[in-house]
Amino acid sequence: MLIARVATGDGPRHGIVRGDLVLLVHGLTDLRPTGARVPFSPNTLLAPVRPGTIYGMAHNTGPADRMLPPQAFLKPGHGAIGPGDPIPVPRGIGPVVAEAELALVIGTAARHRTLDDALDVVLGYTAANDVTARAMQAQDSLWLAGKGFDGFTPLGPVIDTELPVEADIRLDLDGTPVSRSTTTALARGFAEIIVYLSSITTLQPGDVILTGAPGADAELRPGGQVSVSVAGLSLQNPVIAASEPVGLLEHYRKVLA
Amino acid sequence: MLIARVATGDGPRHGIVRGDLVLLVHGLTDLRPTGARVPFSPNTLLAPVRPGTIYGMAHNTGPADRMLPPQAFLKPGHGAIGPGDPIPVPRGIGPVVAEAELALVIGTAARHRTLDDALDVVLGYTAANDVTARAMQAQDSLWLAGKGFDGFTPLGPVIDTELPVEADIRLDLDGTPVSRSTTTALARGFAEIIVYLSSITTLQPGDVILTGAPGADAELRPGGQVSVSVAGLSLQNPVIAASEPVGLLEHYRKVLA
Repeated sequence: MLIARVATGDGPRHGIVRGDLVLLVHGLTDLRPTGARVPFSPNTLLAPVRPGTIYGMAHNTGPADRMLPPQAFLKPGHGAIGPGDPIPVPRGIGPVVAEAELALVIGTAARHRTLDDALDVVLGYTAANDVTARAMQAQDSLWLAGKGFDGFTPLGPVIDTELPVEADIRLDLDGTPVSRSTTTALARGFAEIIVYLSSITTLQPGDVILTGAPGADAELRPGGQVSVSVAGLSLQNPVIAASEPVGLLEHYRKVLA
Repeated sequence: MLIARVATGDGPRHGIVRGDLVLLVHGLTDLRPTGARVPFSPNTLLAPVRPGTIYGMAHNTGPADRMLPPQAFLKPGHGAIGPGDPIPVPRGIGPVVAEAELALVIGTAARHRTLDDALDVVLGYTAANDVTARAMQAQDSLWLAGKGFDGFTPLGPVIDTELPVEADIRLDLDGTPVSRSTTTALARGFAEIIVYLSSITTLQPGDVILTGAPGADAELRPGGQVSVSVAGLSLQNPVIAASEPVGLLEHYRKVLA
C-alpha cells in the first residue's frame, strides 16, 4: 500500500494511492478512508510525513562500522521537504552533499523493542536524502551545523507499507548515476536500529529514521537536480542557492565579533 | 505576563494566569482569550509548551567557552515533561545529572536574525532541567544517548513573557541548595544564541532553546526531588527509577550480540 500526503483545497491530507486516485484518510495514524478522493498527481505530493523527530544513524555503512557501538543524530523535524521542493544550498559553508537512504516511518509508539517485535512499529518506508554540509560537520562534532539546515531532509514521494528485506538504493545527479548500493550493505539493519533507538527514547508515530547511506555521496550545486531511488520509490529535488547570501560562518563571526 | 498550559476536561489548553484564574487562549501563537477560564492550580500545570524542536547550547558556561565557536545539540521534543512529572532514571547508564537552565520559548518563526532583532522572536522564558547521562554523553559524541532519554527535559512551571536581562539560576536537591548562579555567567547571551541558531535553521513557534547551565550540576537519584529556579520561576520534579529494568548498554549489547 502506498500512502501519500497531498495538497488539497482544505490543506494537506494523507491518503491511500489507488490507481490514479488518492483516497483520503483521517491521518497517518488512522488510515480509515474519509470517503473523499482526489486525483493522484505528482505535482500535489508533499513530504509524506511531517516528522516530529528525525533520527539518523551515524556510521552505519559497511561491516567495519559494526565494530563501533551504534550511534544516532537528530535533525530538526521542520527541515523535511517533499518531492520537487528545492534544496537550498547556503553559500560560505563549503561542500553540501546528498546521501541516499531508506527512511523508516514509525506508525506506533515504540519503547524497548526487541529484534522480534521491532519492525511491528514501522508504518513503512520512503526515500530520503540526508543532505549534509561536510565541512560544517567536520567542524561541529554535534553535527547540527552539518545537518540541521532548512530543507536538508527531502522525503518522499510516498510511504510504501511493504518494507523490503533488501532495498536497492540509487543516487543520480542531473540524470547521471552516481552510486548504486543496497541496504544489505548497512552495518545494522532496520530491526537493530529500532532496538537501539527505542532503548533510549519512545519513538513516536510520524517519527522518521534515516537508516544510513550505503553508497557514495555527491556534491549538490545550485541549478542541479538530485534523485534518490529506494526500492522503486524515486525522490527528485532541484538544488538552488539559498536566498540568504551570507554563509553561516561569515554570518555569526560578523554579528558575534 | 505568565502563560500556562493546563489540563482541562477538553484536553490541554494554554491560558494567561490572572490571580487565581487561568484565562484560556486559542493557543501559544494566538493569545486572544476564548472567554473560558479555569481555576489556577499547580496540580493541573503541564509543560508550558510541547516543543517541536528542543535546541541546547553546548559549552556555554564561562568566559573560556567564548573562545570556542558556538555549538548546539538537539533533544527529542517529546522528551519534555512538566512540573511535578517524574524524571525516570534508567538503570545501567551511569550517573544522571540535573542542569539548571533558562529556556527560551520561541513565539515567531525566525531565520537569519541579527543581534538587534533576535529577541523579538522570543515569546518568553521558562525554567528547564537539561537532564544528562554523563557517562553516556562521554561515550556518544553526538549526545543522543547522553541527553535523549524520555523525560530528560522538564520545563515549567509557566512561561514568563518578561525576559530578564539577568536571571538568577538555582538548583536544589531534596530542598538543599546545590548551586547558585546567574545567566550573566553564560558565555553567549540570549540574542547571540538566537543569531547562531537562526543562521542554521528557521526557529519555529513553540521551539525551546536551553541556553546553558552556568552553575554546578547534581546527580539525580530515584526517590529524590529536584528543583530548578530561574528568575522567580520554580520547577520541581520527583526522580524515579525507570520502569524498564534493563539499562541501555546491557539492553542493546544483549539483543544486538
